[in-house]
Amino acid sequence: MRHAFHQQLDDLIVGIADMCGAAGQAMEAATQALLQADLLLAEQVITDHELIVQKARTTEEQALTVLALQAPVAGDLRAVVSALKNIADVDRMAALALHVAKLTRRRHPEKVLPEEVNGYFTEMGRIAVDMGSNVKQVVLSEDTHRAEQLADDDDDMDNLHRHLFTVLMDREWKHGVAAAVDVTLLGRYYERFADHAVEIGRRVIFSATGESA
Amino acid sequence: MRHAFHQQLDDLIVGIADMCGAAGQAMEAATQALLQADLLLAEQVITDHELIVQKARTTEEQALTVLALQAPVAGDLRAVVSALKNIADVDRMAALALHVAKLTRRRHPEKVLPEEVNGYFTEMGRIAVDMGSNVKQVVLSEDTHRAEQLADDDDDMDNLHRHLFTVLMDREWKHGVAAAVDVTLLGRYYERFADHAVEIGRRVIFSATGESA
Repeated sequence: MRHAFHQQLDDLIVGIADMCGAAGQAMEAATQALLQADLLLAEQVITDHELIVQKARTTEEQALTVLALQAPVAGDLRAVVSALKNIADVDRMAALALHVAKLTRRRHPEKVLPEEVNGYFTEMGRIAVDMGSNVKQVVLSEDTHRAEQLADDDDDMDNLHRHLFTVLMDREWKHGVAAAVDVTLLGRYYERFADHAVEIGRRVIFSATGESA
Repeated sequence: MRHAFHQQLDDLIVGIADMCGAAGQAMEAATQALLQADLLLAEQVITDHELIVQKARTTEEQALTVLALQAPVAGDLRAVVSALKNIADVDRMAALALHVAKLTRRRHPEKVLPEEVNGYFTEMGRIAVDMGSNVKQVVLSEDTHRAEQLADDDDDMDNLHRHLFTVLMDREWKHGVAAAVDVTLLGRYYERFADHAVEIGRRVIFSATGESA
């Protein structure tokens, strides 16, 4: 029975790790679409999002099945509930990549971003993609070192996000309010993406060690 | 055993309803603080937020206890998992009220909002508070009529949010980019608050009737 439980929990974890990978890839493609005003790529992210939603649903059903069949208690129960929360976070990460793609599509054939802030979003995108790949590894391996890396990446993301606001708020900003509104929303999408990745990392490490990352 | 389960589930539901009430009150106070640049009130929201976080933690522990002691299956299991998700949504609603209060504090003694958009936020605040109170009743009574009301309120919120953007994007906007950035973020906080309330309402109705609201 315990063996069956651990097998099912492992399957669940692999499912969540796959979702993390998919969310990271979605953000990678969405960022490229954003930077290049690439409509086809944006459409691809929007279409593929349905696959992640579907995966979230089946992974959640797996978690419910484990609860129903194994009736885990104590640490085992917490591990499954933690998995349920991770599914919600990664689902949200994918939704944020979707938002980036949708804004890209809405402004097409215009670029959403003024040239001046391209560098910020290139870098925020790079960090987000790294975090997607790191959080996948943390979920699979409970690697505390990588979980710390997630927190460091989140700090970098927050710094970029703050700098971005100083660029926006500067009197030298010449791109008007409409562009500033888009940049504000996009900045928030990347920042929230990172927050959810950190949240998953923290939960995995806490689950594994009983200590906060 | 079944009786004990239903008693515990009821307690859990009351806890979640209380949280919905508290999140609505937090948004009410945060909106008033925002509109009046009332620092004391903003501080109060920020301090009281800790109580909601604490309540979320204890309510989640209750849910885990129900799972561990009762090992519910089928519909009963779904009801508890649905409760866990509702806790996460209402926790996020409270965090969004906190964001409004924090932005108010950051800009004090200046008002965050240009006079011109006060009306939007008065109305978005009113809708958010109504939704907090409606979602509380939906959680307690599984009242499908009120759940539909939540969806209608969310439509109103989305319309206001869209109009707000047209005001921001208008060439007549005279308040500069910094104010536009704040207004963009605030608009998003109210819109997300409404989304989470709708999500809870939908989940409760689906749980109760097996049909989407």
